[in-house]
Amino acid sequence: MALIVQKYGGTSVGNPERIMNVARRLLETQREGNSVVAVVSAMSGVTDSLIKLAREVSSNPSKPTEREMDVLLSTGEQTTMALTAMAIQSLGGKAVSLTGAQAGIVTNGVHTKAKISNVTPDQIKKHLDDGAIVIVAGFQGETSEGAITTLGRGGSDLTAIALASAVEADACQIFTDVDGVYTCDPRIVPTAQKIEAISYDEMLEMASSGSKVMQSRSVEFAKKFGVTFEVRSSFNNKPGTTVKEESEGMEQVVVRGVSVERNQAKVTVTQVPDKPGCAARLFTALADAHVMIDVIVQNVSAAGSTDISFTMNRDELEKIGDLVDRVAAEIGAGKVSKRDGIAKLSVVGIGMRTHSGVAAKLFEALAKGGINIQMISTSEIKIAVILDEEKIADAAKLAHTAFGLDAA
Amino acid sequence: MALIVQKYGGTSVGNPERIMNVARRLLETQREGNSVVAVVSAMSGVTDSLIKLAREVSSNPSKPTEREMDVLLSTGEQTTMALTAMAIQSLGGKAVSLTGAQAGIVTNGVHTKAKISNVTPDQIKKHLDDGAIVIVAGFQGETSEGAITTLGRGGSDLTAIALASAVEADACQIFTDVDGVYTCDPRIVPTAQKIEAISYDEMLEMASSGSKVMQSRSVEFAKKFGVTFEVRSSFNNKPGTTVKEESEGMEQVVVRGVSVERNQAKVTVTQVPDKPGCAARLFTALADAHVMIDVIVQNVSAAGSTDISFTMNRDELEKIGDLVDRVAAEIGAGKVSKRDGIAKLSVVGIGMRTHSGVAAKLFEALAKGGINIQMISTSEIKIAVILDEEKIADAAKLAHTAFGLDAA
Repeated sequence: MALIVQKYGGTSVGNPERIMNVARRLLETQREGNSVVAVVSAMSGVTDSLIKLAREVSSNPSKPTEREMDVLLSTGEQTTMALTAMAIQSLGGKAVSLTGAQAGIVTNGVHTKAKISNVTPDQIKKHLDDGAIVIVAGFQGETSEGAITTLGRGGSDLTAIALASAVEADACQIFTDVDGVYTCDPRIVPTAQKIEAISYDEMLEMASSGSKVMQSRSVEFAKKFGVTFEVRSSFNNKPGTTVKEESEGMEQVVVRGVSVERNQAKVTVTQVPDKPGCAARLFTALADAHVMIDVIVQNVSAAGSTDISFTMNRDELEKIGDLVDRVAAEIGAGKVSKRDGIAKLSVVGIGMRTHSGVAAKLFEALAKGGINIQMISTSEIKIAVILDEEKIADAAKLAHTAFGLDAA
Repeated sequence: MALIVQKYGGTSVGNPERIMNVARRLLETQREGNSVVAVVSAMSGVTDSLIKLAREVSSNPSKPTEREMDVLLSTGEQTTMALTAMAIQSLGGKAVSLTGAQAGIVTNGVHTKAKISNVTPDQIKKHLDDGAIVIVAGFQGETSEGAITTLGRGGSDLTAIALASAVEADACQIFTDVDGVYTCDPRIVPTAQKIEAISYDEMLEMASSGSKVMQSRSVEFAKKFGVTFEVRSSFNNKPGTTVKEESEGMEQVVVRGVSVERNQAKVTVTQVPDKPGCAARLFTALADAHVMIDVIVQNVSAAGSTDISFTMNRDELEKIGDLVDRVAAEIGAGKVSKRDGIAKLSVVGIGMRTHSGVAAKLFEALAKGGINIQMISTSEIKIAVILDEEKIADAAKLAHTAFGLDAA
């Protein structure tokens, strides 16, 4: 008998009818001879309604309010878990729901974005031994002092993966509203295919490059604890994408996928003096202003100075104001240029490590399409280029074809 | 410094604006130099919405579903408690919210109508010592095994009284949408007055006679643990009604109040054989059919048989069907008559014990108004009569005047 952890996101449990579907799916999994733990999110829209209520009583969210925000938001998953257990019972099955605290999920005390410190799944095991399907509230835990905490964005995925690790599950399935991870966004590249298996590192690079199937932290957690999981759709029965340790066979595919991130912006500071501390001054100032930076590129210096460019989401550009101009003046740099209307294209694959010529092949494909590359940045298993946003769809198609990813 | 427990019902916290008002009231109480514990209900309407959701996933509520119903319903109070704490914080105050479980309210395992078995208010005391206003979810607790339970109807009042007892509060205030307990329903008797102080027993008799300010179980609990409490309005600052142990002064008022219960129905079984077991057969059958009986009257027998009458809420009459007719036939009784359109009038007062002539005065007052009495039933501190429903307002006014209860 296998032990399976399944996670259902907010869309999958978005209304009573969908909750009934989830209940049927869980019962089916149990009837196939498995022990089943289900992690559920808040019904879609519920969290937003709760946040709206909170804003009506609290105009200035402060540190102590974060504790209460966790108390408030945790009711969303608690509602879903009770309804899911009831739905299973109404179909003749046996089910028990547990809050994060009851399920033994202990976190640190950083409210609204707590980290799981340990999991003691005694209650889960007891109810599984009893033949029940165990429904656990995602996204939440409690501190060792007994305060309710929430895990922040992507928290329910994290709950599922942490539980799968703690109960030593045979499988962990993340049910969502997409079929799995694709070689590229099918809305951009119609020939994109579902990826059968992907390594943690590739998944992380895809996630950080705009393929927002899952938050990076859940993938990192899975990698750390060696939890293999599958991302699949709750609206059909097709197999999804398995995310796991890299295996030898995986390296034979040079590029696993192509990621696209639109709505980027770029800032270039020219003639930055080539002396220690200049870059630090600039990026410390940006960090203090809570500007989220993506790619940073600096080339070798010429004539005692260099140009530094960095990209970010377009929304972040507004936060910058004249900050960079002021710092540039302070450190004796030259002109500052800012522009949006750009996008990032990344090709990702652990096979890159052992294959040379990947960059060349990408640049050649883009050149053939007459697409100019504004910036280049690489990691061990990723090559990212910054392009004009209006060229990004063409660029993605060209890269997808060049690396042999198109569906037959 | 006094320690005060305040309870706010669903109407008092019915929307964010009202929650802000409650927050101001709590802060005011604290600034007057008190330590404050607040028990809050679910926002009005929330519990009904949750029940509606439950019905959409569960057509046949069963025993295991009751556990999940408690998990579901407890989110209602949890939402209010977080919002109330946030509201206090947004006004510059210090507040911490606690679920029933966190507040140390331990119950038995009878889901949806659990009984409080003990309260260990360690967390409450810790946060009070810390200078915080402590907001506790009403209506809920947890079993010693850690399952969430709810206390059933009137559960939040019970939470407040149990906490007041556990923390040895100097005062317990039940804030509601009425000003206090009145000598009669002011909609029926416009000259009715607010009662300043009433004994537990009088309050119990008033509650069981249709003055639904509070559920009897909360008053019984307060009586058992000697908790003095005040019922008052959350919409103004007027003093309410204090409910407490009877004192000597109280007995000087012969009748404390007049209660009215409309929508009653009456069943009479004639010529019941005067032998042991006949009444038992009848009322066991009614109990098995879950019919809630109110007053039962049986007079002395004549010629080897007697008539038995009993009353109930009109809705209960439908449940009876031909049940009574069948039992009557079995035990060899005579005709059975059923009718609705009747009402109950009760006069209540501990002073009755030491004053004779109360019954006579009531009957005389009703007779003067030409009102026929269909049934009479008395307890130590109550006289109840069954009348035609259309005469009940006149009867209440006559009784109210006869016992000197009219406002000057």
